[in-house]
Amino acid sequence: MEVKERILEQASQMFLRFGIRSITMDEIAESLGMSKRTLYEHFSNKEELLTECIEFQYRENLKLRDDIEKAFGDDPLEIFHQHFRQVIIIINSIHPSYISDLQKYYGHIWRKHIKSKQEENIAFTTEQIERGKAQGIFRQDVDADILSRAVHMAMQLMGSPDIFPETRYSRTEVFRQVTLNFIRGMATAEGMAMVDEKFKA
Amino acid sequence: MEVKERILEQASQMFLRFGIRSITMDEIAESLGMSKRTLYEHFSNKEELLTECIEFQYRENLKLRDDIEKAFGDDPLEIFHQHFRQVIIIINSIHPSYISDLQKYYGHIWRKHIKSKQEENIAFTTEQIERGKAQGIFRQDVDADILSRAVHMAMQLMGSPDIFPETRYSRTEVFRQVTLNFIRGMATAEGMAMVDEKFKA
Repeated sequence: MEVKERILEQASQMFLRFGIRSITMDEIAESLGMSKRTLYEHFSNKEELLTECIEFQYRENLKLRDDIEKAFGDDPLEIFHQHFRQVIIIINSIHPSYISDLQKYYGHIWRKHIKSKQEENIAFTTEQIERGKAQGIFRQDVDADILSRAVHMAMQLMGSPDIFPETRYSRTEVFRQVTLNFIRGMATAEGMAMVDEKFKA
Repeated sequence: MEVKERILEQASQMFLRFGIRSITMDEIAESLGMSKRTLYEHFSNKEELLTECIEFQYRENLKLRDDIEKAFGDDPLEIFHQHFRQVIIIINSIHPSYISDLQKYYGHIWRKHIKSKQEENIAFTTEQIERGKAQGIFRQDVDADILSRAVHMAMQLMGSPDIFPETRYSRTEVFRQVTLNFIRGMATAEGMAMVDEKFKA
């Protein structure tokens, strides 16, 4: 693996496990067994490293998405279900400080990232909904583009401490409730039985 | 009617019909047949007038909500349906400039208002969902508080030009799609038939 890639993988792991503020460039260099100087040759500061870590994680998620699509490409409910499981695994493995640090101190980086990937992610969901409509799983009068946009919007706000303070709400449960309600809302009578079977706890 | 109340009613109408920026304090005074000086005795500037207009409209909506609750208090689906119809009437009667002016130039006022009423509005929706669960219309595993928060969050963002640019999306259709999907998502098999009957186009 290229040095840069190795740094991104290690730094991502450390940020996700311990939060962003609590990890220094020194500690990242040390854990990689490299000098601070080598680290700074690749990333001129922590913000730059974090920005590229977020891109790195996104690329990793895209690989996973491709794998899921290869395996279940013609089954939109299974694709939603696999993503659903994947997100729950990710939420449960992230240190709460990672999300609150991102919101409090690096919001500009996160917003820029989300914005740059927004249309691509919405298009992916729209495609799955359209496929579900063609298969009779989802209602014909569902506007796939509008609902895809609405749910992506809701997902982005799920971490908002204003609406879901993390001391009172489990992120997993919020995600589960919103996702399941979103998919059930689109389902036809035939689709509903399939959704409830697939997503039962 | 008290002078202040009369100003709020007239100014609200003018803002909603023509937008905020295009209406001056002069024009408001003139349309009320009062001097500019009298107007300024009640509201020291346009921002203050707008802030109180928003509160005035909110109070008017609360009256409507009370009427709806008095008439259909034990029928949560009908309450949702009446609100749904009411919001569509409001969306269709508002000049697009009112919303874009509010977002672009008076966002601080709007956000403060929304925030101050947020918990009260969420609690109202939560109560309807709980009633629907008790009646077997909505699923037992619906978390009324979480879904109520999520849908209020989505409603707030519906006007976001970033996600739903107003030249491409009809506000009415976005609202219709999101609301119907939200309610269907919660419905039991028995509830679903009632929802689809009530909300059919």
